[in-house]
Amino acid sequence: MIGDYLPFWEKLGKAEQEKLEGCAKKQTFKKGTLVAGEHRECTGILVVTKGQLRVFVLSEEGKEITLFRLLERDFCLFSASCTMNGLTFDVMIEAMEETEVYRIPPEVYKQLREQSLAISNYTSEVMASRFSDVMWLLDQILNKRLDSRLAALLLEESSLAESEVLTVTHEQLGNHLGSPREVITRMLRHFQKEQLIGMSRGKIELLDTERLTALAEDSIR
Amino acid sequence: MIGDYLPFWEKLGKAEQEKLEGCAKKQTFKKGTLVAGEHRECTGILVVTKGQLRVFVLSEEGKEITLFRLLERDFCLFSASCTMNGLTFDVMIEAMEETEVYRIPPEVYKQLREQSLAISNYTSEVMASRFSDVMWLLDQILNKRLDSRLAALLLEESSLAESEVLTVTHEQLGNHLGSPREVITRMLRHFQKEQLIGMSRGKIELLDTERLTALAEDSIR
Repeated sequence: MIGDYLPFWEKLGKAEQEKLEGCAKKQTFKKGTLVAGEHRECTGILVVTKGQLRVFVLSEEGKEITLFRLLERDFCLFSASCTMNGLTFDVMIEAMEETEVYRIPPEVYKQLREQSLAISNYTSEVMASRFSDVMWLLDQILNKRLDSRLAALLLEESSLAESEVLTVTHEQLGNHLGSPREVITRMLRHFQKEQLIGMSRGKIELLDTERLTALAEDSIR
Repeated sequence: MIGDYLPFWEKLGKAEQEKLEGCAKKQTFKKGTLVAGEHRECTGILVVTKGQLRVFVLSEEGKEITLFRLLERDFCLFSASCTMNGLTFDVMIEAMEETEVYRIPPEVYKQLREQSLAISNYTSEVMASRFSDVMWLLDQILNKRLDSRLAALLLEESSLAESEVLTVTHEQLGNHLGSPREVITRMLRHFQKEQLIGMSRGKIELLDTERLTALAEDSIR
């Protein structure tokens, strides 16, 4: 039931709940499907119930820059940008694995948001989160791509240790790169979310050396 | 009166209007004042009534990257980021000239937003606009800084024409840079907003060759 995936469900009135239940359609995207492209479709709000969507933009050179990923229970606003005044940019959305969503049609969502405080407030919060993700990316780009330097360092350590499991502290990595421990921890968590590494107590395991290598060699332009 | 500056004023109830009027304080920032810095202050919502605020971030090398500017009637959410779940980034805000604002205390604003659909919806819209501004900036950075290339071209044309007033079409500029006319027009409007150039029918006037030169020589890193 779609209500299970919407944190504001209990705050809605009966009529609003029924409206949402009546219009939300389950949809499945195969791995690799482009859920939204460059043609400003307005497919509606997608609520992920299984799988993973990647939201990205294309650079002039055709490079894909990932803005953020949407996992189970995430709420994709950017497939419904027509419902939101002021939202004037386009993104591409790709299913990274077989992904199931509930789709709420844009006109229903717009109407509900304009009537329901719970939905309106939730929309603001989701947008604030995604905005923060993009600001984080911008910070990465402006700050000489710590991700790239950290990936290079992890590969180097791995090669030195002749192992894909490293016993190195975040502080030690930070010292190598001249960055505070907190910044390194934040970046490692990002790597973990991107399934580049695994982390367990005191250990970092390189899970995808191929992508780490690409990242290490990479710069945004 | 603060109501004159709030587009949602008429949609508020009497009690909400009185609450806003009672708590909003006029405040003036001298040119150059840092209205918000890196210390996560939460001063509240600022509603600009006169002047201009610039919202920017600092790169690692200490370079200031302007995200957007707030002019009369604009609503500054980022000085009240504590009121918004999910908004986890910090920005700096500087008064570019003597700037007058109404300040709405964060706790009052948060409470009103949680109660008033009009304020909640307006907040989403403002956030969507600013998010779009930042996406535009990201696009600039990823796409080899068209602004820099266009500034260089305008200066070159000006030097060739021995005049600071150019009679050149957006299409011609686009042809020089290999960009569609629409993209050039959008960028020229941005330059105009930044007071780098003036535009009138068929003419482009360079207003600030110093900043254009800096832009032309510049790259984000």
